[in-house]
Amino acid sequence: MTDADGKPQPFARLSREVLVANPWHRYCRDRYVQADGSEGQYFYVDMAGSSATIPVFADGSTVLVHVHRYLLGCDLWEFPIGGMAPGEEPLAVAKKELAEEAGLAAGEWTKLGAFAPYKGVSNEVTHFFLARDLVERAQHLEASERITVHRMPLAEARRVLVGQPLGDGQSMAGLLLLERWLAEGNTL
Amino acid sequence: MTDADGKPQPFARLSREVLVANPWHRYCRDRYVQADGSEGQYFYVDMAGSSATIPVFADGSTVLVHVHRYLLGCDLWEFPIGGMAPGEEPLAVAKKELAEEAGLAAGEWTKLGAFAPYKGVSNEVTHFFLARDLVERAQHLEASERITVHRMPLAEARRVLVGQPLGDGQSMAGLLLLERWLAEGNTL
Repeated sequence: MTDADGKPQPFARLSREVLVANPWHRYCRDRYVQADGSEGQYFYVDMAGSSATIPVFADGSTVLVHVHRYLLGCDLWEFPIGGMAPGEEPLAVAKKELAEEAGLAAGEWTKLGAFAPYKGVSNEVTHFFLARDLVERAQHLEASERITVHRMPLAEARRVLVGQPLGDGQSMAGLLLLERWLAEGNTL
Repeated sequence: MTDADGKPQPFARLSREVLVANPWHRYCRDRYVQADGSEGQYFYVDMAGSSATIPVFADGSTVLVHVHRYLLGCDLWEFPIGGMAPGEEPLAVAKKELAEEAGLAAGEWTKLGAFAPYKGVSNEVTHFFLARDLVERAQHLEASERITVHRMPLAEARRVLVGQPLGDGQSMAGLLLLERWLAEGNTL
């Protein structure tokens, strides 16, 4: 993008270089036009996105997963979530992760919204879904995963997610998307 | 870490390599022991942390910043936030960013809590503070930043943050930390 004088517009990309590619994401360096018109570098994670699900049973209970997070050296309480590969659809990934991590299949899916979890360093968008009409199946974990599944009332899950000494930011933002949907007059 | 038989424990780090270092963070690859005992690779952003602030004036109003986010190609409504460099303290960074981005100094600071914004790909912990006894000063932006400052009632800020088509996950999680603090019987 250029302005009327042919100068590049602020935040225009000048070049993009993939520094590291791995099975999960790409780590990139862009040259770009900064807010003041000068040239800058931007180092970031290029990620297709992620999909997370709040499953709600007919009795009003939900499921949290307790996940060991290697990078933080501790277990976090979370809603089931998984990363999207390029070309994958958010809903398909939500279904796959709910089945693999939580051992649940759902007959009814509702999109709750989306947010950027880490806007400064990743272009990832996290999509959140509500899943109802649930059926319990077997969990299927990857070699890298240690995840346990816990069913509890939704109000208790909220207390657990908001009360953690170190919270999971993505699950916390997802809670607000569910509350937005309920405030619009929808019911579980 | 090893178990009684001398085998490495799941999630033990075997090696760490900094693949890219830049002024903002390090991009690393660890070899580690996966949940099933096999060796795996973990690619991630190594970041000291970040600090964000919810400023609240005596009249109950707050300030949101409207920030152009290069990676997402749009502007997001956010609470003021900034990254910590190694060795920096969360509170010092919160004070610096509130001054630079929002042009505010505060006489009273309260820690609201912390969360992991991007647990799968970054070891960053985001710290949230409440700032009161506010004084307005001049904004000081970096060359890379385009940020405007907007004062509004706290309830309106909540609607703006939760109502965005693409939300800022960190500010949304921060809202829940403020609400947790209020639910504990504290008042603004």
